[in-house]
Amino acid sequence: MTQILMSEAAHLRIRDRIAHLAPGLRIVTVPEAGRYQADGAEVAAADLAPEIVWNTQEAYMSGLLPSLMRPLLDCPSVRWLQTFNAGLDLPVFRRIMEKGVRITKSSAQGVVIAEYVLAHALSLIVPIDAQRQLQARREWGRTQYREVSQTRWLLVGYGAIGEQIAQRARAFGVDLTVVRRGSDAGLAHRTLPLSRISEALPDTDVVVLACALTDETRDMCNGAFFAALKPGAILINIGRGGLVDEDALRRGLDASRPAYAVLDVFQTEPLPDDHWIWGHPQVRVSAHTSNSGDGVQPRADIQFIGNLERYLAGEPLMNEAERSEVGLA
Amino acid sequence: MTQILMSEAAHLRIRDRIAHLAPGLRIVTVPEAGRYQADGAEVAAADLAPEIVWNTQEAYMSGLLPSLMRPLLDCPSVRWLQTFNAGLDLPVFRRIMEKGVRITKSSAQGVVIAEYVLAHALSLIVPIDAQRQLQARREWGRTQYREVSQTRWLLVGYGAIGEQIAQRARAFGVDLTVVRRGSDAGLAHRTLPLSRISEALPDTDVVVLACALTDETRDMCNGAFFAALKPGAILINIGRGGLVDEDALRRGLDASRPAYAVLDVFQTEPLPDDHWIWGHPQVRVSAHTSNSGDGVQPRADIQFIGNLERYLAGEPLMNEAERSEVGLA
Repeated sequence: MTQILMSEAAHLRIRDRIAHLAPGLRIVTVPEAGRYQADGAEVAAADLAPEIVWNTQEAYMSGLLPSLMRPLLDCPSVRWLQTFNAGLDLPVFRRIMEKGVRITKSSAQGVVIAEYVLAHALSLIVPIDAQRQLQARREWGRTQYREVSQTRWLLVGYGAIGEQIAQRARAFGVDLTVVRRGSDAGLAHRTLPLSRISEALPDTDVVVLACALTDETRDMCNGAFFAALKPGAILINIGRGGLVDEDALRRGLDASRPAYAVLDVFQTEPLPDDHWIWGHPQVRVSAHTSNSGDGVQPRADIQFIGNLERYLAGEPLMNEAERSEVGLA
Repeated sequence: MTQILMSEAAHLRIRDRIAHLAPGLRIVTVPEAGRYQADGAEVAAADLAPEIVWNTQEAYMSGLLPSLMRPLLDCPSVRWLQTFNAGLDLPVFRRIMEKGVRITKSSAQGVVIAEYVLAHALSLIVPIDAQRQLQARREWGRTQYREVSQTRWLLVGYGAIGEQIAQRARAFGVDLTVVRRGSDAGLAHRTLPLSRISEALPDTDVVVLACALTDETRDMCNGAFFAALKPGAILINIGRGGLVDEDALRRGLDASRPAYAVLDVFQTEPLPDDHWIWGHPQVRVSAHTSNSGDGVQPRADIQFIGNLERYLAGEPLMNEAERSEVGLA
């Protein structure tokens, strides 16, 4: 029997869809914080021996995550964690992987985060705000602009999220450079390693940060980065706040390098009430919610079920993290 | 010698690119309103005998269009008009075609109009305004929303513009129904004839009007249309103002059918100062400028040159209008 730990809500959602696997599974659920159940009976925390743990977004939102994390960290039985996180920069993931646990990340957010990126970029390039100002003045006026099709994009990171962004941006005919390890361009016109990013910056209209936060990428958007960036560019950060030196960004905005920043993530979250970013006219803020679409959970459920089938069949797992992603050699 | 009439500015843009055709051409240009020149010499209006006329956007903007239209209408020599218009509902095009002149429409606006449509739709579906309101209050808050990927689109018209819209919408994974004559679905999941449009309306999240204005389509968005539309839907009209019964739209907005209208075209243009549409909180207005991107003229030039080569070689022209488009049998 393979023991799997998940929230009660998650189990209710997928129960019927894993019925074909059920004979070999023992599902332990968390009906409320600190309580565990299997087959309708209580399970003492000391008796838990999960082989698989499934951390879900809704468990995080409803405060049940610690009840999943404690067995994950304490039980030597755990072999695989499917988590709702797309990035593994929190130190806990290093501890988990050091235990020998395989970690698969979520790719369910890719679609909605790509929608966020494109919606913000398009709404800044197409002069929607200028049109609204004309409308407010009842003025029948022309708003000429640079077409999206004529813009050059620089996408930093090409994981499950980056690929979704690339797919949508390419449909608009943009010129796309991707910064990543290796030379597989995917949907991009060309790739660059991070060490050569400055070559692309003078020609870049839209920069999207969709990479992991590592020692290599921390503060990658610093004073030199912004000084090299094309004036008028747009910066969109849906990666991690630690990718951007916020003081350097503030000085960059003064020089229109970038002209606009769309930030979903910050050095400190929640963003402090008195932070300059809140009130800056060239900055759009969202509260680390670019992943908040109604399609995320259904896709995450499908991903877990698919990975569970693969795990039980001994096949490679989808979106499995490499050791380097948690800072291990 | 094939005589071609165009603006001086248009000639300067393409001269080098038609040099290979030049031996067989006599280019007559319009240096200013009412004056004509060829090979550096004045040409009397009475001596004009163009076979081809090229109406360009910049000639329209600079007031030179009448100097192109008068020979077009008066000279029996004209065989082909390349115009910057995408729709031919103005009565003059019927007169021109009745003369036996072939008309090719512009497809150069497709890219930028599709960008306009996607930018507005995305900026309404992705809760950008709600995020900005939270930001204004310095509130770290969640904005859950229906993903673009989960929406159903109804695209009315599948010409050069409709196809560009479809291409970009499909990249977001939307469900796409196209209303058009014939059953070639193109990039759509299915097609419907206009007579059956009401079948799709209860499930439609985004309606885009990208069709010609004809006797069949005039006032197609009337009271019955809006009554059948899904509450919360978005209506985007980049076709012609005559497609929408504006009084019926006003009543529809009160019932959130549609919840938002994005209008680039109107029954009366310019939109009168005192029109209710200007101030309606559920309506976005632009001034028939959804075609105002910087890539339109370069693409139009390329299209004309390509069509000129085809014309001279006796090959089919790109984007040639059918007689029905100007109301002829």
